[in-house]
Amino acid sequence: MEEKQERVERATIILHSGEMDKLYSALIIGNGAVAMGMEAYIYFTFWGLERLKKGGLEGGKLSRMHLLGLGKWMIKRRMQQANVASLRKLLTDFKELGGHVMACDMTMEIMGIGREDLEQEFIDEYCAVGTYIQAARDSTVTLFI
Amino acid sequence: MEEKQERVERATIILHSGEMDKLYSALIIGNGAVAMGMEAYIYFTFWGLERLKKGGLEGGKLSRMHLLGLGKWMIKRRMQQANVASLRKLLTDFKELGGHVMACDMTMEIMGIGREDLEQEFIDEYCAVGTYIQAARDSTVTLFI
Amino acid sequence: MEEKQERVERATIILHSGEMDKLYSALIIGNGAVAMGMEAYIYFTFWGLERLKKGGLEGGKLSRMHLLGLGKWMIKRRMQQANVASLRKLLTDFKELGGHVMACDMTMEIMGIGREDLEQEFIDEYCAVGTYIQAARDSTVTLFI
Repeated sequence: MEEKQERVERATIILHSGEMDKLYSALIIGNGAVAMGMEAYIYFTFWGLERLKKGGLEGGKLSRMHLLGLGKWMIKRRMQQANVASLRKLLTDFKELGGHVMACDMTMEIMGIGREDLEQEFIDEYCAVGTYIQAARDSTVTLFI
Repeated sequence: MEEKQERVERATIILHSGEMDKLYSALIIGNGAVAMGMEAYIYFTFWGLERLKKGGLEGGKLSRMHLLGLGKWMIKRRMQQANVASLRKLLTDFKELGGHVMACDMTMEIMGIGREDLEQEFIDEYCAVGTYIQAARDSTVTLFI
Repeated sequence: MEEKQERVERATIILHSGEMDKLYSALIIGNGAVAMGMEAYIYFTFWGLERLKKGGLEGGKLSRMHLLGLGKWMIKRRMQQANVASLRKLLTDFKELGGHVMACDMTMEIMGIGREDLEQEFIDEYCAVGTYIQAARDSTVTLFI
């Protein structure tokens, strides 16, 4: 924090929402940040954390996209045509590029989610708000999604 | 605010949403920030401000939690078991730790909300976007919830 | 962007949501920022970009305002009484004050939106996440709406 000249810039995203489109936005921004040489942290909490449950990445509902009459099959096909990767691929890329994934342990307790329920290979740490604040206070980009 | 070297770090949160889980996120982050020595400002606007009406903190609806089949009684019980304080307790703690609460006066005018309708003991100032920008431009963490 | 000492402060907003109240918040904050001497960038993506389609600014639905029993006519009347400009007026002002509008080209491809479908006179550039990151990393205020 003190040496502003030398530290790597960081983007820290809280992913509170669980909708597919919000998850896409979070991962596309996270991947964009690491691809451009920044650090990127995503803190999964509330409905966002639910998407890290086994089967949660692709199994989730489409939210408003569905209301607009674009079915799951259609939107996936259009995303493939636009060369947009799946959520699983985006998250895998994010990790391989050095992105950092945090899981909210308060959400786990409230929702009754155990570590064995989560896709643990994606998760770097199980933590609380203090760890988020520590990451965010040194970030140049902070978002709540 | 002018002396960047010496100033205390600040988190400034716009609370636009009124859902219980969003309110929890805003207050948990705000409390985390002040507990770690930062300043924290929350600007209540639109549906967020409605929750500052008398009876609004605990009276609000559960949003998606309800859709997932977790009733109000159940979610409150789980939060108690996880030692998560009530929204009123979190807001009281936030204020006692030095947190700053701003109420959007444009929302009050549009929604027909008078000061006497609000829990005034929590509110530090009634103001508009200019005051928010002034607080946010000196913040290291800025969030829209 | 390279000369950190002398650069103008900037607010960079991602507008992901399409609800009228979220659009109001984004534009009011953006206008507040430019009015106070900051740069302001708004990156329209997903449902936010849909509101830049011809007829999309005023044609959109009211989201939760409607659920609360405030009809479109009522809310517009109240906003007029409170001297809140229309979305079109706010966006026009934003542009005239020097605000910068970016349209997400991935959204255009997925949603099948052509440039001819959009209100092109408001749009400064059609771009992707890399352009957003470049704008955001030099910003003092970053928001996801």
